[in-house]
Amino acid sequence: MVEEKLLERGVEVEVLDSDEMRTHLCKGLGFSKEDRDTNIRRIGYVAKLLARNGACAITAAISPYREIRDEVRKGVQERSIFVEAYLECPLDKLVERDAKGLYKKAISGEIENFTGVPDPYEPPLKPEVVVHTGDEPEQQSCARILKTLEMLKLVPEVTGDDYAAAEEAAVAARLRDLGYLG
Amino acid sequence: MVEEKLLERGVEVEVLDSDEMRTHLCKGLGFSKEDRDTNIRRIGYVAKLLARNGACAITAAISPYREIRDEVRKGVQERSIFVEAYLECPLDKLVERDAKGLYKKAISGEIENFTGVPDPYEPPLKPEVVVHTGDEPEQQSCARILKTLEMLKLVPEVTGDDYAAAEEAAVAARLRDLGYLG
Repeated sequence: MVEEKLLERGVEVEVLDSDEMRTHLCKGLGFSKEDRDTNIRRIGYVAKLLARNGACAITAAISPYREIRDEVRKGVQERSIFVEAYLECPLDKLVERDAKGLYKKAISGEIENFTGVPDPYEPPLKPEVVVHTGDEPEQQSCARILKTLEMLKLVPEVTGDDYAAAEEAAVAARLRDLGYLG
Repeated sequence: MVEEKLLERGVEVEVLDSDEMRTHLCKGLGFSKEDRDTNIRRIGYVAKLLARNGACAITAAISPYREIRDEVRKGVQERSIFVEAYLECPLDKLVERDAKGLYKKAISGEIENFTGVPDPYEPPLKPEVVVHTGDEPEQQSCARILKTLEMLKLVPEVTGDDYAAAEEAAVAARLRDLGYLG
């Protein structure tokens, strides 16, 4: 949804989807911590190349380990801007939803090294934006992310979105806390 | 040198160097045909992402197999332009030059699967531009590549380069043969 909204605003955007990356850049990698780290490093590397050439990359990958996320952030920030969006959702909701049927398999032990069951997920400490996908409408999550990008002057501003207007103060407060917005 | 000249003309350019790619995206891959193919596919994939986001990617990698080069070309051409530059040089000159000392090791058998010794190199059949790095000055090779990019309307034209002026007719003839230039 964020991708669509960005395209509507005329922002060229490339979604670096984890499944696609695993096909093209990471064939043979599994889901151990080491392999996950390599996967995220590669996605981060491609995002860095895109970003420093003026493109906008959305990395849509489960990246459970804080250290690697911070390493990727550092690389991107050499020449571009890195915005970490934390999509927070309680584990029980994820299990209940189980969109791809993977939690069921993880719980039964059919698949191993699954984030959440039993592998850890280390939440970010200072993400630029947090959305609560378990208990808020998708439009609201999306509006908060876009408002964050607007305030960071990364995308053109659009008026008339009720959700966006409601998010403005909270987004500004978070960004100010993180040292943005002068 | 092509990179420098492009930057001088204000073209943002990303060089996808084989060694760097092997560090970031292809760790663990060797030099067998299969591993080389995977390496080139990955470089091609990143070039495609960059190109379709409006950036210019130079792939600086030894890519000995025609089939994979053509596969990458096809992918890039879905939404961008692919220009194949064939840097032709007789093997004996390469061995004589041996910039990295690798030919010596290949000949002695210390390294295996080296392109040229004993592995094959399949020259492209229809490259957009051919330069003869064995017997022409680097400036001339560079000018021919840039003139090709100019004629394909990929970079702004620059006048006053003697080499470029001398190359113009030959570049135009080649591109016309390949079906470019209407």
